[in-house]
Amino acid sequence: MSGTRRVALLVAYHGSAFHGYQRQPGFASVQAELEDAWMAITGEQVVAHGSGRTDSGVHAWGQVAHVTTASTIPAEKLTHALNTYLPDEAVVRAVADVEPTFHSCHSALAKRYLYRIALGSIRPVINRGQVAWVRGELDLGAMQAGARHFLGEHDFSAFAAAGRSTSTSVRTLNSIHIWPQRGGLSLIVEGNGFLYKMVRNLVGSLIEVGRGRRHPDWLASVLESRDRQLAGATASPDGLYLWRVRYHKDPFLCC
Amino acid sequence: MSGTRRVALLVAYHGSAFHGYQRQPGFASVQAELEDAWMAITGEQVVAHGSGRTDSGVHAWGQVAHVTTASTIPAEKLTHALNTYLPDEAVVRAVADVEPTFHSCHSALAKRYLYRIALGSIRPVINRGQVAWVRGELDLGAMQAGARHFLGEHDFSAFAAAGRSTSTSVRTLNSIHIWPQRGGLSLIVEGNGFLYKMVRNLVGSLIEVGRGRRHPDWLASVLESRDRQLAGATASPDGLYLWRVRYHKDPFLCC
Repeated sequence: MSGTRRVALLVAYHGSAFHGYQRQPGFASVQAELEDAWMAITGEQVVAHGSGRTDSGVHAWGQVAHVTTASTIPAEKLTHALNTYLPDEAVVRAVADVEPTFHSCHSALAKRYLYRIALGSIRPVINRGQVAWVRGELDLGAMQAGARHFLGEHDFSAFAAAGRSTSTSVRTLNSIHIWPQRGGLSLIVEGNGFLYKMVRNLVGSLIEVGRGRRHPDWLASVLESRDRQLAGATASPDGLYLWRVRYHKDPFLCC
Repeated sequence: MSGTRRVALLVAYHGSAFHGYQRQPGFASVQAELEDAWMAITGEQVVAHGSGRTDSGVHAWGQVAHVTTASTIPAEKLTHALNTYLPDEAVVRAVADVEPTFHSCHSALAKRYLYRIALGSIRPVINRGQVAWVRGELDLGAMQAGARHFLGEHDFSAFAAAGRSTSTSVRTLNSIHIWPQRGGLSLIVEGNGFLYKMVRNLVGSLIEVGRGRRHPDWLASVLESRDRQLAGATASPDGLYLWRVRYHKDPFLCC
């Protein structure tokens, strides 16, 4: 039983409790939790299509999923009901009715990711698992200068992990902001799409620049090389958050 | 083997990993972890006297402990060495040499606690365990007005949990600040000492006022009654942090 009503879910989760967003047999996933909660409420087997997978350990504040349903339960009641069944590490922030053509992934115009880094010689214990730790200090100005090379349309092959095929590795980054935070720094990057582990790879190379091991312009040459071997290490998933997915018509504008 | 050198440790920990600060047979405690780490480094069995116990689940950013030792390892090296042996949920932020008369608890002039509350209909998932959750909204102005009744010297029997004997239940609160935070509010309270579960009991009653169930002046009558039965429920340990212990001469002023 699957109707023509389509709803979008705005979902937050703590990544360390899941092997990513997407359902995988034998592993905890956000998708499976959402679909199981939906089944518990409506008796209906649905697919909760996510805007993207998010890797194991990666957090989300604004993941978006859509469901096609025959249920007539009002959106607001669905939010509360789903949260009753979801585990403590995942929560539906809002449910909104959308047009039947809305697709969480294909309709997305852009995605925004947040990356949080704690600095210094003392490892984070209160925020453990919610922030990456770089021992020592980073040169913010050098990182900001280097990050500018990523703006615009590029072939990001050098920053894509192997293992997932996509038709093209060309993506457009609209903005990157890096700013100091108490005890560390934060980065927000927005683009029309991201390759597998691309944000963590961009951050890993920016950290090389911040440490002074590489010149900011080194990032331009890595980008141009399209060679993953030349880029820095993949940064930890602990610091990464899928922050927001942008659509032409935001389903959650009211929230 | 126990020398006359005394050092103070500035310790942060995530409370959910421990049954409180104080060593208890059969339970994980911060004190046991510190003493075990010290043993691993120096071969010396010491006692890591804390400034106070902190209950099970309560966090610390600025717990202070002191140790009497025969070790001659410099303070800075001790910090790093202890952190090598401590579990992920606890970290020594600094070690400082102090006078032999320094006592983490008896020398303390005042303690400052932070309490963090997330508000709204959506439970916190990213900060889960690090913040208390109050479903709905709280009237900040009413809480601020009510909190003023706690300032100064009072018999806080009405806000003390049974189970630990102290010679007197009179304490002095120097300051209470409550302010809005993104998605919730925070409270900082400083006093010359706190009874068992006193901060969580003060917060629990302030929440009653914030919900509009009680008038701010109700707190004055509860205080005066010295009757624990009249106060609100004990607030969750999730939101509570031992933030700072103040001494006449701050051992960590440089840090």
